[in-house]
Amino acid sequence: MVSERLAHTAAFNLGFFVGVGSRGETDALHGASHMLEHVLFKGTERLSAEQISASIEAVGGDLNAYTAKEHTCFYARLLAEDSPRAIEVMSDMLAHSLIRPQHFRSERTVVLEEIAMGNDDPGDVAHDITARRLYGPSGLARPVIGSVDSIRAMERDTVVDYWRSRYRADDIVVSASGAVDHDQLLEALAPLDQALSARRPPLEAAVGGAPAVAEPGVFVATRDFEQLEVVMSWPGPALLDPRRSALDVLVTVLGGGMSARLFVEVRESRGLAYTIDASEIAYTDAGQVSIEWACAPSRLQPIIDVVRSVLDDVVAHGITEEELARAKGQIRGQTLLGLESPASHMSRNGRTWLQDDPRSVADIMAEVAAVTREDVHALAAELFTGRPTLAVVGPWQEHTPVSLG
Amino acid sequence: MVSERLAHTAAFNLGFFVGVGSRGETDALHGASHMLEHVLFKGTERLSAEQISASIEAVGGDLNAYTAKEHTCFYARLLAEDSPRAIEVMSDMLAHSLIRPQHFRSERTVVLEEIAMGNDDPGDVAHDITARRLYGPSGLARPVIGSVDSIRAMERDTVVDYWRSRYRADDIVVSASGAVDHDQLLEALAPLDQALSARRPPLEAAVGGAPAVAEPGVFVATRDFEQLEVVMSWPGPALLDPRRSALDVLVTVLGGGMSARLFVEVRESRGLAYTIDASEIAYTDAGQVSIEWACAPSRLQPIIDVVRSVLDDVVAHGITEEELARAKGQIRGQTLLGLESPASHMSRNGRTWLQDDPRSVADIMAEVAAVTREDVHALAAELFTGRPTLAVVGPWQEHTPVSLG
Repeated sequence: MVSERLAHTAAFNLGFFVGVGSRGETDALHGASHMLEHVLFKGTERLSAEQISASIEAVGGDLNAYTAKEHTCFYARLLAEDSPRAIEVMSDMLAHSLIRPQHFRSERTVVLEEIAMGNDDPGDVAHDITARRLYGPSGLARPVIGSVDSIRAMERDTVVDYWRSRYRADDIVVSASGAVDHDQLLEALAPLDQALSARRPPLEAAVGGAPAVAEPGVFVATRDFEQLEVVMSWPGPALLDPRRSALDVLVTVLGGGMSARLFVEVRESRGLAYTIDASEIAYTDAGQVSIEWACAPSRLQPIIDVVRSVLDDVVAHGITEEELARAKGQIRGQTLLGLESPASHMSRNGRTWLQDDPRSVADIMAEVAAVTREDVHALAAELFTGRPTLAVVGPWQEHTPVSLG
Repeated sequence: MVSERLAHTAAFNLGFFVGVGSRGETDALHGASHMLEHVLFKGTERLSAEQISASIEAVGGDLNAYTAKEHTCFYARLLAEDSPRAIEVMSDMLAHSLIRPQHFRSERTVVLEEIAMGNDDPGDVAHDITARRLYGPSGLARPVIGSVDSIRAMERDTVVDYWRSRYRADDIVVSASGAVDHDQLLEALAPLDQALSARRPPLEAAVGGAPAVAEPGVFVATRDFEQLEVVMSWPGPALLDPRRSALDVLVTVLGGGMSARLFVEVRESRGLAYTIDASEIAYTDAGQVSIEWACAPSRLQPIIDVVRSVLDDVVAHGITEEELARAKGQIRGQTLLGLESPASHMSRNGRTWLQDDPRSVADIMAEVAAVTREDVHALAAELFTGRPTLAVVGPWQEHTPVSLG
């Protein structure tokens, strides 16, 4: 358990970070982590689903959850005077949910609706295509939510077993921030700790394995939209890779806002797209760097050409001293402004403790301050020399030639 | 100018709230407010577009803007030590932009891309349909962004004239919050005040007029999506209508989260949709209450039937004492938690001053506390007795019968 007491806030933030995500699912369990996250809201012996939500919402708080590829998070934010509610309700959900068969069935149809919603979202579809090509054959290659087939076939008892074997005290970080008292919280969570410590680890070995080699090329999902959604990706550093600070600088210079190279070249100078961003994702043993935009079909190749020339320039010449200084100032200011939100402390601490990342914010800021032009240049040369994986979603004309340069 | 000094924050938030929005546009000017917002970022005599963004982003700040139907807002957030940059750059943009012809043309193509992006977003399309039926023939009935035709035809000089006649000191509220000194800010903004005070008001009379009677019925935009996006609306109270506190309670009971009636009936008990929300929008002299969800086509009528029965029940019996108390607690807690963000003070003060709404947060909380079951019951009966305007976007089968109950 990690808590960070912050002065001058009336809010209490509590998160349970569980080391369970879609990556560790077998084929038969595909989507089980997410389904489990859903059904844990459906009621316990003491509380109905409505009472769970109402107890937090009646005092203006939020209670929610998300499932990612390597973890699941349940979190609440409310006024500190109401903190006992959050502790009580969330402990109850995590240890004593009933997951009644009729609730399981009802939630299965909800998840099928959520899959349909994702299929209508061009960004979601493009990111799923990208993951499939970058992370195969590991579990990172699959969507968190599961597939229509895996969800339709999923049984209540399978998910209950999954919960009982995976949600164990050893694999959960509790993170709190704001108006919080560490010792009181520890005491209040003792019953949950006891309940989850009694659980046995799963018998089967960890599944999922490491990603193999990324597959470059152009991968298309045809949809009847007006715009093409485009995600252009390369494999990148993993979570604890020491090059991530240099990557942070590189991504900021390329796509960290309206003064970044890609925005200036694609939108500001040429008006080719509404926006264009660069970003990175990192997992335990893999990662990616992506450039993303939406555009009219006729602008696909012109934008790829501009992106390619921006990248070629960085690969050949690196970044300027001015860009380096600007990116460092940008990262420093964003970090300090981000920490103004008490919830950000809860969520940062929870994630980094679960990932066994021992670095403080000050450590990371020192790492960023130490990045050199040479670091960034070397990283750019390594990342962007190979051909990218291009995911395109939208009104695609068969046999459209696309040159990745 | 309104400023709110907040202790314990390192951030400075600055917003310019201009009383210019799409509502006041003639047909020929449709989309001019939004286009103007875009081109004011394209450079001044002293700063290029890239320099405008870079000056704020280089210290980790944000500089952005949005255009609404009744106002336009430019805002920045950065560390207090960097506040002079924001004041200087934003003053320069608002008074001394060049709007060069080639920049105007380039930005026109960007706005056309933005229109295409909105056409691919089922929620945007459904809200545009709703506005067209609720607010005709006033300017509120039209999308803020303009149409493909109006943007293609728009000339640079028209937009420059629009800017010169509409962006006047009398029509702008400057709002700041966080680590701010009111007198220093006033002094720093004096040159901008002078520049904009010299401008002449427009000669033509205000355009747009008041909305007439809303048009109920089913209005469809067919799209090749998996889900239908549905927005069900009724005319509602305007901005300063005294019934808005009762409306706040009513909307909270119906659709303010996972313990709200609609969520419990549609998702929790029946698994018919991933989520369903109730919300309200208010303008100077008009407003709307809407219920919104996305679902498989086969679930359209079943969900309408559930919604109708929830509403019929509220119209017949009002809400319970417990619901009233819960909604008040929810609104109180959300308000207090919302005020924890320094930026929220800037944005609330800016909007309410521009709207001549003299009420403080404490006033509004007192109004909410005074709401009775009778107030809510009377309002529900008034709002939901008539037939709604139903906007549906997605895979529509011609001649699908839809009964609005």
